[in-house]
Amino acid sequence: MAPRGIPEPVLIRGTGLLGASIGLGLRSAGADTYLSDPSPSAQAVAVDIGAGQAFPGDLTAAPAASPAGDAGSTDGTTGAEGAFVPGVVVVAAPPDVAGQVVIDSLVRFPGAVVLDIASVKGAIRREVDAAVVGGQLTPEQSARYVGTHPMAGRERSGPVAARGALFTAAPWVVCSGGDTSPEAVSAAEEIARVLGATVHRMSAEDHDASVALISHLPQIAASLVSSRLQETPAQSLALSGNGLRDTTRIAASDPQLWVQILAANAPDILRILYGVREDLDRLIATMEEPTAPGARLDIAQLIAEGNAGHARIPGKHGAPPQAFAVVTVIVDDAPGQISAVLQDVGQAGVNVEDLRMDHSAGHEVGMLEISVLPGRKQDLTDALTAQGWKVV
Amino acid sequence: MAPRGIPEPVLIRGTGLLGASIGLGLRSAGADTYLSDPSPSAQAVAVDIGAGQAFPGDLTAAPAASPAGDAGSTDGTTGAEGAFVPGVVVVAAPPDVAGQVVIDSLVRFPGAVVLDIASVKGAIRREVDAAVVGGQLTPEQSARYVGTHPMAGRERSGPVAARGALFTAAPWVVCSGGDTSPEAVSAAEEIARVLGATVHRMSAEDHDASVALISHLPQIAASLVSSRLQETPAQSLALSGNGLRDTTRIAASDPQLWVQILAANAPDILRILYGVREDLDRLIATMEEPTAPGARLDIAQLIAEGNAGHARIPGKHGAPPQAFAVVTVIVDDAPGQISAVLQDVGQAGVNVEDLRMDHSAGHEVGMLEISVLPGRKQDLTDALTAQGWKVV
Repeated sequence: MAPRGIPEPVLIRGTGLLGASIGLGLRSAGADTYLSDPSPSAQAVAVDIGAGQAFPGDLTAAPAASPAGDAGSTDGTTGAEGAFVPGVVVVAAPPDVAGQVVIDSLVRFPGAVVLDIASVKGAIRREVDAAVVGGQLTPEQSARYVGTHPMAGRERSGPVAARGALFTAAPWVVCSGGDTSPEAVSAAEEIARVLGATVHRMSAEDHDASVALISHLPQIAASLVSSRLQETPAQSLALSGNGLRDTTRIAASDPQLWVQILAANAPDILRILYGVREDLDRLIATMEEPTAPGARLDIAQLIAEGNAGHARIPGKHGAPPQAFAVVTVIVDDAPGQISAVLQDVGQAGVNVEDLRMDHSAGHEVGMLEISVLPGRKQDLTDALTAQGWKVV
Repeated sequence: MAPRGIPEPVLIRGTGLLGASIGLGLRSAGADTYLSDPSPSAQAVAVDIGAGQAFPGDLTAAPAASPAGDAGSTDGTTGAEGAFVPGVVVVAAPPDVAGQVVIDSLVRFPGAVVLDIASVKGAIRREVDAAVVGGQLTPEQSARYVGTHPMAGRERSGPVAARGALFTAAPWVVCSGGDTSPEAVSAAEEIARVLGATVHRMSAEDHDASVALISHLPQIAASLVSSRLQETPAQSLALSGNGLRDTTRIAASDPQLWVQILAANAPDILRILYGVREDLDRLIATMEEPTAPGARLDIAQLIAEGNAGHARIPGKHGAPPQAFAVVTVIVDDAPGQISAVLQDVGQAGVNVEDLRMDHSAGHEVGMLEISVLPGRKQDLTDALTAQGWKVV
């Protein structure tokens, strides 16, 4: 059965990881889904894994270009797609071309809600607005556009990595610009909900300022730190702990994707980088004379400001930041060890709030760090110790 | 039974987290251990938790100051400690005063190996050398000093957090300077081994250059990023994902401790920060004109250099970096769920190489990311799916 509130059929333009995952999720929710990708092989893979049917037509030719064609009855499609009239077009093209594919879709498919899922929203909004000013789109056509951003899956790529549940529990921003129709917003929000995501409604400007800080800045910082490791002797890297690993984890991201993201959000990112540079310059100046009066206070201030900012990051499930208590258990590096610990945790009736493995060089054991509510720490420590576990 | 190779009794000066943990670990290995701390309450807590016996004397008075007193038979102690002659003194004082406590211990306890565990090694080495030049120490006394650095436990503090197994599987650097006696080095290495750590032998200079990069730079980066979050609207922070959480995790560290560490290692850190500033300046200049020729290549280059540096971080147990395959399972936020998944993983005979929870705002479910050897991914996915788990 088709999900209520999503105008069908759904056409997904772009079948990379995100497009294919949206297709898988919508199909398993019962929606009639079609796929199109400029790369025939990417499209074929997405069809093969069950993300939707192949779109019956050619989207490479120019659409019927009349800006007056949004009366609802006009068929804006060309060639073999014939009378194919999507209710929603999901533009999952790379950020660089997403704006043009949005405009093309608004012209080509009268009446369809057109949403995109690119990581930066202002640039595409401005492209659509410019198309209205330039006469390429009518205001009615542009009102069918809604910008969105599902915040998931950045680290993998390609349709083979696609999973219908990729968006489960992920934030999905829906940008309700001034002239966006309520129908377009509600269709976009329904798609996000059907895919299991949590809808956050905000303006394109607020979105871009937010991701500059919570997504683009961490990427830049991880890349800057990792870049310094290029010439490091192996004996230094052998001392690496979780501090370095965590701080640099996202440095493994795709350069081609990130060029597009960073370039599209340059003004918001620059504002933040100016602040970082000021802090860095101050730290460098202070450390050049670490014994000068006030130098130590300045350094402590930087760390303390980091404490303050860090404390504002929300906890699990968006709850207010909460200090969990950590119970650390030593486990051998063998199948079944971790599950055996966690089985005893479950039998103690204690919920695991967070979980991490702490690895170190040269030892075939690991430390399993189990975060629990502070009030449960002693119970859990006692229970695990009684079961013979080595609680650190 | 006392561990072989550790001259007893062991006196630990400083009973914070690390000092008390060393005491607990050595005592459970059978070593005769004494504790001393300028704070009577910190010392009492450490004694209460079983980290050792209270040192029978007063270490606040000046030691017998004769630099000729290292003949082996002289009793350098003063006051009530009487004939107390430690075989090893472990200086676990704060970094700022560690050098002075090392020198005091070398003078006060003739014949004892004196090791410290501060995070920066060159500064203390230079203090000891200067004391020789200044006639405060004889070369024979200074030969009993060995600098070490157990790389564990930075994020918690205080004797109540102490655990004997804190150092299990952690790297422990032992610095064999030019004139350090082989006996001192071997006593220090034996202590590290008895406590379950892995010994890495390197010079103080190599150690400080290494930690500047793998420990101090990540701390600074995490603090700089987190500092930017201070004025962020809550709606922006609600979009936070694991990228931001991981990059900033260590930003919660203690300002007073980090001032001492950063100030003590200023020259090595500055060399790295100059490189970071150069990269940052280039990125800012590029992003100020993101459409200029070559701008995109420059941005891609930064991310690619981050890829290259990140790829050099060693994998688990110091093994060469290895790409594990990740199997992601959706679990409810209830006791026993994670253990139930991992029990099925264990029954499938697949070893868990790494483990993380992926949290997102607004949902009472989590994604459990299980890293396994690439060749086991399909087996595990099949086994878990067959057991009814939702593998993403």
